[in-house]
Amino acid sequence: GIREFCEALYPAVTAEILAELDSREVWRVISCCDSQKQAEIFQFLSLPQQIEIVAVIDRGPLSKLIEEMAPDDRVDLLSRMDEEHVEELLPLIAQAERSDIRKLLSYPEDSAGAIMTTEYAYLPANITVAQALEKLRQQAPDSEIISYIYVVDEGRRLQGIVSLRELIFARPTRPLSELINRDVISVRVDDDQEFVAQQMAKFDFVAIPVVDNQNQLVGIVTHDDAIDIMQEEATEDAYRLAAVEPLEDSYLSTSLVTVIRKRIGWLIFLLVPSFLAAKVLEHYEAVSDKFEWLVLFIPLILASGGNAGSQSATLIIRAMALESNIQREELNALLMKEFKLGLLLGSMLSLISFGISWAFTGALMQATVVGLAVFLVVLMGISAGGMLPMGFRKLGMDPALMSNPFITALVDILGLIIYFQVAMYIVS
Amino acid sequence: GIREFCEALYPAVTAEILAELDSREVWRVISCCDSQKQAEIFQFLSLPQQIEIVAVIDRGPLSKLIEEMAPDDRVDLLSRMDEEHVEELLPLIAQAERSDIRKLLSYPEDSAGAIMTTEYAYLPANITVAQALEKLRQQAPDSEIISYIYVVDEGRRLQGIVSLRELIFARPTRPLSELINRDVISVRVDDDQEFVAQQMAKFDFVAIPVVDNQNQLVGIVTHDDAIDIMQEEATEDAYRLAAVEPLEDSYLSTSLVTVIRKRIGWLIFLLVPSFLAAKVLEHYEAVSDKFEWLVLFIPLILASGGNAGSQSATLIIRAMALESNIQREELNALLMKEFKLGLLLGSMLSLISFGISWAFTGALMQATVVGLAVFLVVLMGISAGGMLPMGFRKLGMDPALMSNPFITALVDILGLIIYFQVAMYIVS
Ligand SMILES: [Mg+2]
Ligand SMILES: [Mg+2]
Ligand SMILES: [Mg+2]
Ligand SMILES: [Mg+2]
Ligand SMILES: [Mg+2]
Ligand SMILES: [Mg+2]
Ligand SMILES: [Mg+2]
Ligand SMILES: [Mg+2]
Ligand SMILES: [Mg+2]
Ligand SMILES: [Mg+2]
Ligand SMILES: [Mg+2]
Ligand SMILES: [Mg+2]
Ligand SMILES: [Mg+2]
Repeated sequence: GIREFCEALYPAVTAEILAELDSREVWRVISCCDSQKQAEIFQFLSLPQQIEIVAVIDRGPLSKLIEEMAPDDRVDLLSRMDEEHVEELLPLIAQAERSDIRKLLSYPEDSAGAIMTTEYAYLPANITVAQALEKLRQQAPDSEIISYIYVVDEGRRLQGIVSLRELIFARPTRPLSELINRDVISVRVDDDQEFVAQQMAKFDFVAIPVVDNQNQLVGIVTHDDAIDIMQEEATEDAYRLAAVEPLEDSYLSTSLVTVIRKRIGWLIFLLVPSFLAAKVLEHYEAVSDKFEWLVLFIPLILASGGNAGSQSATLIIRAMALESNIQREELNALLMKEFKLGLLLGSMLSLISFGISWAFTGALMQATVVGLAVFLVVLMGISAGGMLPMGFRKLGMDPALMSNPFITALVDILGLIIYFQVAMYIVS
Repeated sequence: GIREFCEALYPAVTAEILAELDSREVWRVISCCDSQKQAEIFQFLSLPQQIEIVAVIDRGPLSKLIEEMAPDDRVDLLSRMDEEHVEELLPLIAQAERSDIRKLLSYPEDSAGAIMTTEYAYLPANITVAQALEKLRQQAPDSEIISYIYVVDEGRRLQGIVSLRELIFARPTRPLSELINRDVISVRVDDDQEFVAQQMAKFDFVAIPVVDNQNQLVGIVTHDDAIDIMQEEATEDAYRLAAVEPLEDSYLSTSLVTVIRKRIGWLIFLLVPSFLAAKVLEHYEAVSDKFEWLVLFIPLILASGGNAGSQSATLIIRAMALESNIQREELNALLMKEFKLGLLLGSMLSLISFGISWAFTGALMQATVVGLAVFLVVLMGISAGGMLPMGFRKLGMDPALMSNPFITALVDILGLIIYFQVAMYIVS
């Protein structure tokens, strides 16, 4: 029957099949299982689908389902449900789970606290290996990860970690304290989620402990959530680089209206520099009237500078995303490198543009104007592409913030000024 | 002394400190430790630094270091060293490690085989829990992950998995076969690394088994390498979207010459459409001579279409990167959505551009030309942004392949044609 179907497969596989069904049908299927299995499958559904489904479940079974869910996943769900519904549900949820929920809901979005789970294994230091294994046996069913066990004192302050691997093969009478690694790496509950994921990537941990200001252990962040955060942050950067505001859910499951809201803002904002570019062209109208061939190469000049500048911005933003603690000197070195690249790439593109436009127009002077303008505009684009993300970062803003369209817009305005100034200088 | 310093800290922390030193100094420090610790620290150094360091180590200690390294990490290193040096080293390496190296070196780059490790725990099915634990005790020191233990038959074919958590708390006399989960998810040795990482993200596994054509277990891919692959693939996509060829190492540690090689190719290629745009402008010279105000709005028309198109391309490429098995119907739905977005975003931007350019020029006809052109060019840009990545994918190419500059280039050419045709139609 349905129950066997759900229990034979991996929860993630069942969830994938259920993704095709409507909310009532999904609930009809998973309600055949016990509430633990229900929660396991339910957690693998996408958040938008979870939200649809909770709307069709009665309060009784829903509160049971939420009790069984992983602490981090249920808080993600509850924070997206409407508040009335949540306030209606909370009284039905067991006391321990309820206070855990309230606590986790209190951490700011994108902080370690908002992504950690509170189901981990912990032990006191002053016991033997055999006693530790006995305690672990009791905790194991409710712990997401037991590869590391956290050692805490009476005040729940983090003292060290023990690896399960060492614990299970140690002599039972040995004091646990001999197995404890006291050089423990942890993150703070208010650290940014991106930093947490970077630390996990750096240390190759299966889970990282999260502590509060008093060094009390408050949770752990697990490897699977670290991968999700990396993906989320990479998506956020890619979107911002293309002037799209980050979406909460996948693009496929986001409504048309929401997508429009996330796209139109920056598109409208970017009309401003385009009208400024029109103003610049108006200013140089006398020049372009006299030398009509100048207009032909406007797309070339602007595209070269825009493309080269976007390359630089992308390279630097990605370097910042991959290095958790990129230093000021490294950034200065990057900027210096970018400037050299501007000179070199600018020269190369300039020479080629000079050659082609000479062939194109047959006029040496025109080719000289184009070649020189390409050099200067590429140099300018690359410098802007290198400096803008660092500038945004310094202002405490996201370095990826609509960088590429912003650079293109800057190149449109400054590039035109450079181009016409070069033309005026050379033809006179 | 130095030895205590190395042993007290996490290898990743030691490696971070050593990153500041030159190759000889690094080797002087780590050669104080035993070869296992040496390898642990060495593995956390960046590949470019590893390559520099192996050049200064004598063959004897180097072969010991390589023997101690994780199978996946040492193959990454060996595949980047020069072949002569490798052929000189291999005879000094123990037989078992040597054949493992040759095998792993044979898998194509970016395949599951190229990222898997061969140090995992495995058991036969026909033993008891106590016997399993005894075997595991022997294997544990050489296994990277023991949270899952793989059950294989005499032909090493993968039969199922046992979780360590269940194993350690099971009654010792119980047959292992009762604990085996036979619905095992694996990947094939020739699967793409991106697919492997997506499967890990989907199933939340700490490690995923890799099998060959005969379902023989040949390795496992671990969670930490899955994170690295996700990062690598996200970086690759970001670079391609900005027309930068992927780099092997971090941007910071890549030489100026290599960066130029990775950037100049597409920049030169993109000059071609810019000269085509010049041809288009030449073609319409009579029109722009007569209606000189047309030139003023060229940057506006092209930027609007380019920005909107880049948004679409980025959204679709990210959707493809996040979903391992995005279906044809879903892609068609996405394309349909993009077309609607083209109509809606196009209308909005068109109205605003109409208004501003009316204010700007004071001429209703000119504003009408600009408004209508913005609508059509944005619609065209968004359609191109939606279709290009899917087209690349259909041709078996990377959907991210220089998408944004390519779309901008397309918009430059087609956008100018649309603009002048609209102008000719309206003014006549
Ligand atoms: Mg959360
Ligand atoms: Mg790592
Ligand atoms: Mg979790
Ligand atoms: Mg998760
Ligand atoms: Mg970020
Ligand atoms: Mg963020
Ligand atoms: Mg442009
Ligand atoms: Mg490899
Ligand atoms: Mg996952
Ligand atoms: Mg590895
Ligand atoms: Mg690694
Ligand atoms: Mg890819
Ligand atoms: Mg790839």
